[in-house]
Amino acid sequence: MINGERTISRPLRWGMVGGGRTGQVGYKHRTGALRDGTYQLVAGAFDLDAERGRDFGRNLGVVEDRCYATYMDLIAAESTLEDGVEVVSVATPNFTHFEITKALLQAGIHVICEKPLFFTVQECEEVRALAEEKGLIVGVTYGFTGHPLVHQMAAMVARGMLGDIRIIDMQYTHGFNAGDDTDAPEAVKWRTNPETAGSTFVLGDIGTHLYYLSEVVLPHLKIDRLMCDRKAFIPSREPLEDHATVLMHYNNGARGRLWVSSVNAGNMGSQRYRFVGAKASVEWSDSHPDQLIYEVQGEPNRILHHGMPYLEDESLAVDRMGALHTEGLGDSWANIYLWIAQAIDAKLRGDEAFLQDHHYPGIDAGTEGVRWLENCVRSANDGAVWIDYQ
Amino acid sequence: MINGERTISRPLRWGMVGGGRTGQVGYKHRTGALRDGTYQLVAGAFDLDAERGRDFGRNLGVVEDRCYATYMDLIAAESTLEDGVEVVSVATPNFTHFEITKALLQAGIHVICEKPLFFTVQECEEVRALAEEKGLIVGVTYGFTGHPLVHQMAAMVARGMLGDIRIIDMQYTHGFNAGDDTDAPEAVKWRTNPETAGSTFVLGDIGTHLYYLSEVVLPHLKIDRLMCDRKAFIPSREPLEDHATVLMHYNNGARGRLWVSSVNAGNMGSQRYRFVGAKASVEWSDSHPDQLIYEVQGEPNRILHHGMPYLEDESLAVDRMGALHTEGLGDSWANIYLWIAQAIDAKLRGDEAFLQDHHYPGIDAGTEGVRWLENCVRSANDGAVWIDYQ
Amino acid sequence: MINGERTISRPLRWGMVGGGRTGQVGYKHRTGALRDGTYQLVAGAFDLDAERGRDFGRNLGVVEDRCYATYMDLIAAESTLEDGVEVVSVATPNFTHFEITKALLQAGIHVICEKPLFFTVQECEEVRALAEEKGLIVGVTYGFTGHPLVHQMAAMVARGMLGDIRIIDMQYTHGFNAGDDTDAPEAVKWRTNPETAGSTFVLGDIGTHLYYLSEVVLPHLKIDRLMCDRKAFIPSREPLEDHATVLMHYNNGARGRLWVSSVNAGNMGSQRYRFVGAKASVEWSDSHPDQLIYEVQGEPNRILHHGMPYLEDESLAVDRMGALHTEGLGDSWANIYLWIAQAIDAKLRGDEAFLQDHHYPGIDAGTEGVRWLENCVRSANDGAVWIDYQ
Amino acid sequence: MINGERTISRPLRWGMVGGGRTGQVGYKHRTGALRDGTYQLVAGAFDLDAERGRDFGRNLGVVEDRCYATYMDLIAAESTLEDGVEVVSVATPNFTHFEITKALLQAGIHVICEKPLFFTVQECEEVRALAEEKGLIVGVTYGFTGHPLVHQMAAMVARGMLGDIRIIDMQYTHGFNAGDDTDAPEAVKWRTNPETAGSTFVLGDIGTHLYYLSEVVLPHLKIDRLMCDRKAFIPSREPLEDHATVLMHYNNGARGRLWVSSVNAGNMGSQRYRFVGAKASVEWSDSHPDQLIYEVQGEPNRILHHGMPYLEDESLAVDRMGALHTEGLGDSWANIYLWIAQAIDAKLRGDEAFLQDHHYPGIDAGTEGVRWLENCVRSANDGAVWIDYQ
Repeated sequence: MINGERTISRPLRWGMVGGGRTGQVGYKHRTGALRDGTYQLVAGAFDLDAERGRDFGRNLGVVEDRCYATYMDLIAAESTLEDGVEVVSVATPNFTHFEITKALLQAGIHVICEKPLFFTVQECEEVRALAEEKGLIVGVTYGFTGHPLVHQMAAMVARGMLGDIRIIDMQYTHGFNAGDDTDAPEAVKWRTNPETAGSTFVLGDIGTHLYYLSEVVLPHLKIDRLMCDRKAFIPSREPLEDHATVLMHYNNGARGRLWVSSVNAGNMGSQRYRFVGAKASVEWSDSHPDQLIYEVQGEPNRILHHGMPYLEDESLAVDRMGALHTEGLGDSWANIYLWIAQAIDAKLRGDEAFLQDHHYPGIDAGTEGVRWLENCVRSANDGAVWIDYQ
Repeated sequence: MINGERTISRPLRWGMVGGGRTGQVGYKHRTGALRDGTYQLVAGAFDLDAERGRDFGRNLGVVEDRCYATYMDLIAAESTLEDGVEVVSVATPNFTHFEITKALLQAGIHVICEKPLFFTVQECEEVRALAEEKGLIVGVTYGFTGHPLVHQMAAMVARGMLGDIRIIDMQYTHGFNAGDDTDAPEAVKWRTNPETAGSTFVLGDIGTHLYYLSEVVLPHLKIDRLMCDRKAFIPSREPLEDHATVLMHYNNGARGRLWVSSVNAGNMGSQRYRFVGAKASVEWSDSHPDQLIYEVQGEPNRILHHGMPYLEDESLAVDRMGALHTEGLGDSWANIYLWIAQAIDAKLRGDEAFLQDHHYPGIDAGTEGVRWLENCVRSANDGAVWIDYQ
Repeated sequence: MINGERTISRPLRWGMVGGGRTGQVGYKHRTGALRDGTYQLVAGAFDLDAERGRDFGRNLGVVEDRCYATYMDLIAAESTLEDGVEVVSVATPNFTHFEITKALLQAGIHVICEKPLFFTVQECEEVRALAEEKGLIVGVTYGFTGHPLVHQMAAMVARGMLGDIRIIDMQYTHGFNAGDDTDAPEAVKWRTNPETAGSTFVLGDIGTHLYYLSEVVLPHLKIDRLMCDRKAFIPSREPLEDHATVLMHYNNGARGRLWVSSVNAGNMGSQRYRFVGAKASVEWSDSHPDQLIYEVQGEPNRILHHGMPYLEDESLAVDRMGALHTEGLGDSWANIYLWIAQAIDAKLRGDEAFLQDHHYPGIDAGTEGVRWLENCVRSANDGAVWIDYQ
Repeated sequence: MINGERTISRPLRWGMVGGGRTGQVGYKHRTGALRDGTYQLVAGAFDLDAERGRDFGRNLGVVEDRCYATYMDLIAAESTLEDGVEVVSVATPNFTHFEITKALLQAGIHVICEKPLFFTVQECEEVRALAEEKGLIVGVTYGFTGHPLVHQMAAMVARGMLGDIRIIDMQYTHGFNAGDDTDAPEAVKWRTNPETAGSTFVLGDIGTHLYYLSEVVLPHLKIDRLMCDRKAFIPSREPLEDHATVLMHYNNGARGRLWVSSVNAGNMGSQRYRFVGAKASVEWSDSHPDQLIYEVQGEPNRILHHGMPYLEDESLAVDRMGALHTEGLGDSWANIYLWIAQAIDAKLRGDEAFLQDHHYPGIDAGTEGVRWLENCVRSANDGAVWIDYQ
């Protein structure tokens, strides 16, 4: 159980780029970061509207002269401070991730970035090299993977409780973009424009969550071949997609099915994962996140509740609220932020042995997400054909 | 509401081939047929073991000398009777459907046959021609499509309550064949052998239910292209499959996803259908068959209960139990059997006008199911490629 | 598994009083009776409107001159026939049950009667004496108790899988009478009038189902003390109730809570039962009747599905559809009707030993239901005080 | 939407008594307090074991010399500081609440206390008088009532969307104390001992949550009469109870039913609330907290999701995560802590007008909870009789 005790030597001096008042994404970062004594918000360039951003930062308790108009200003000023920011979260539109991340790393600042990380694997590799050169951490906020029952699934798979994995079925759909984008908010507009969103809409926006979670639960599986069929039901979103199905053949013979959509009218079920093995299956959805369905063929179906003593140690270790008390998405983000803080702290301490065994969504996770997107787009653009995964 | 009152002039003299004591499939036919005064069980060849079949028939109230050893005996003897059987249900393994159906039709007997109807579309066409020549009905027992909420969905689609259909998502999976077939019962053995099952296992066994139900709900949609990826996780089942995903492109631009599996370990959820339109979605599962989920984008999700006055007339007309009282699968079969009886009765009366407008799963439904299977197999055997639907 | 094979020597000649075209209750009786070759509908007085009743009977396949205007006519005429009715189902308003049942028994005819059986325990005792004198069966249609998972619960309790029973929590509520009765149908009007309904509305109409099912599952428990708090939220229903809570203290120290209501606006959950023991609990609802929730303290919750091999033999023995296929309310009624037929058959054969061990809802079940109502009314009318159960 | 922006002039200097490393309750307080820039943890007496408490406090970032051995030490030392604590949370066993709260108030410190507040209404009145005299706030951590959908229910009731309230049905049960207490942890032992727990076990421990939430949703209803039937299934817990049913008659004629138990073996459903009006009902459970069931009689049942635009303003105003993203229990606590901070801030500013309209669980809520317990105990100890509510 996590109880908020500090697990690193001292709080990290933390800043944000983006995440201001006009959206709710910044709150997810802050509610994740500010629980365990691991981060202290000391600076930010919160908003394209500099004045609004400054007002917002003050309301978060950031001193006025560390509320900057741009990320460039932030880097320039903080770099001159003895106690300047050590780590900055990037919660801006996709197309800015690469340039901001590079600039931060160049300035010796650790980075925590929204997904999808960048536009191309090549960009990821460039950033990876830069981060390694600088000895810095790049974390990626795959927020759902902090949930204790995700780690229960991973532990059950690792212990062979499911048998050989045969089928992976994943879905992240909603209907918020079922209508056209005439009156859509900014966050929709930049997400449906290739210039600002990259080569995908829903695949990158929500599909990368599915893919990374499957990597956490099934680290031993690799994709051999993949087929992606995507479509924009609202034509103005072309060449991007608001609906896609991806089929995957894994190296152990398993078959994967993945569905992402933002035109699934009325659907509030959000994410759903089912991992089927030769002996048993597990199923988890963030719409009833406190429960894990565990189904052994020929036995009564079981419902496991988070925080209960019968769970695997790996799950109980990262539980915050305890049984009967709902772990919210914020608690899951808090775990992600904690694990990244521990990685940064190890870097600061020079403890590479710790980093060897330490699990968090880092540059690898971000890169693999982008690689998966590249493969999806390649298949889709060639006519939804099967391709060898590269 | 259906209350058991006879809607045809007199009960049909009914016989069965197969459906004996060793399985439960025959009970589904009988519980469907014997409710509304439409069928009277007067003869049968219930079992490959003639003595056991005779004993069984007697226990169903069939007089001993009309309990036959084989379907050939049944046809031979009943054809000589003035009050011989008028309609016979065929509940035998797939590979016998074609020959038994033809023989019955040749003898002037209406047929009600299990799905998948035959092995090839060509066989279907041959039987269709024969039935037309003889003026006989061929019904197919797609049992789930008798449920009142299936007809609620169809009515809602027809009235435009969902808007243009965009996505069809269907699943019929279970885990009863997750283990190998060493100790499997006969019913599994013939289903996994191409000689007795035809060119598919789960696609034909359970997938045809999904496909036909989608035809009932979306009669105006046609498949343009299709891709089927199938696999036998238990190698002894090859070249048949115990898992398959089928993707479909429809003529209106809609996208379909369909999953069938009998190795979905522990899964008891059975069938699930979701039809997504531009405005709203409906979702129905036979695991909670009394409820229809109706989701209008931007409004609270709705749960519709069978038998309630707010439903469409088409649904209420075929309800049997009334609100709060579960309609079981048997009630759904009863509707199917009733509709087929009404078709036979119309044939007997020479009422072709009635037949024009009367909906029941007949030779068309059977043929289209087989056509869909042929397309699936063609795609799968070519390497899960996209094919034009033929 | 029940497959429709006859388990008695020959079908019983069966008639109905009530159950005509204007309601759906008759269909429940017929769909229950006409499945297993145990009953043959040969006569009826189906309707207060004699002509409509005759037309209805004909449509059910009853010959015209055995469609009677009144139950008196039915008894008079059928008694003169060599093959007159042997058993008659009474599906009329409560206030007629006693007089019709007595008349039938006097004429030597077995009776199957709707619940609540009669108005008073004294009437029940009188009928019991008469039935014994005549050697006749009186069955009561507590239709829900035929479900296989009800018998699973009973078997689990009997085998000690729950430990000592501590808490019984039961609920049967709906909202169909949330509005006043100005435009209510006949079936509501007679149910809310003490002259025709007896001393209760919802307690008798739906509460007796709860009470009898608890007797089936917990035959060893007896009520020591009881408290009933009832109220009519629609004043015109006074002195009857549309809402009541009953608390019960059992002879083993267990505590019972029971809620009935027909003003639970919008509620479609219908019946729910939870039996809590020292070690584990079971919970069943007819809104998801295929599932039984089984919860062992400290272990993952389990969901048991009807028809699965892991169930107790008593449950599998009375399953009809098999796993994955919904058992509807009609299947449950079919079991009740079958068990009553077997009791009548044993009476006809003079097999009292069979009757000793044979379980079905008979005069005892009917009497205990009325006794429970008398106690509830006594407590409620004295101001919702605790009373010793008599 | 709450996004973490500060809504008070500056963070309050905050301390804790109890809430140390051996339990998880302290984390709920901290995860609630440390999100919105409203509290800064500066001091604590976290543990009966002073050394462990000091180590713990340091790990929370409290400077060592403000980690105290006892609450007396804390008060003594902090009172001498210019920037001493302004508000202290009390997360200790029940029997200490009164004395610690009084001492804090005497020292001019605002208090946030766990429920049940104190042992008697008289103690509550004494503390209320003291707080008024000192101009201080006493908040009570009824943590679940911060959930946005609780406030949706309150708004719907206030706007008459349910019609006149008729039935209140509430349940908070689990099975964690189904076994005896031989090896029970400390937290169970003090809760089952009247000296440390007061006159109730589950009524106070979990029942007060139900009662307060009903006050929030139905502020206009008052209890006229009440009946409480309680029992200890584990005899060592006598005279306290591990199971109780409370029936309530309200001043508008409504009927209430409430069930609390910690011996409901295997039950993980936790809390459930149903408020039934003449037109419609709402139902909410913290086991699926993101959904509110809204049932209008005669219409399809509706499921409302938190964060959706169709909700009432009062609900959206206190949402943190937004639609599709689970609000956990910690988010609900965060709202409670925020509202209490705003009350303290108003007191500090001398803004009594603000306090007039500001809703938070304060001394009134605490007092009414204790009053309800006193009435329950009086009824139960007199033999579960009806009593006039005092």
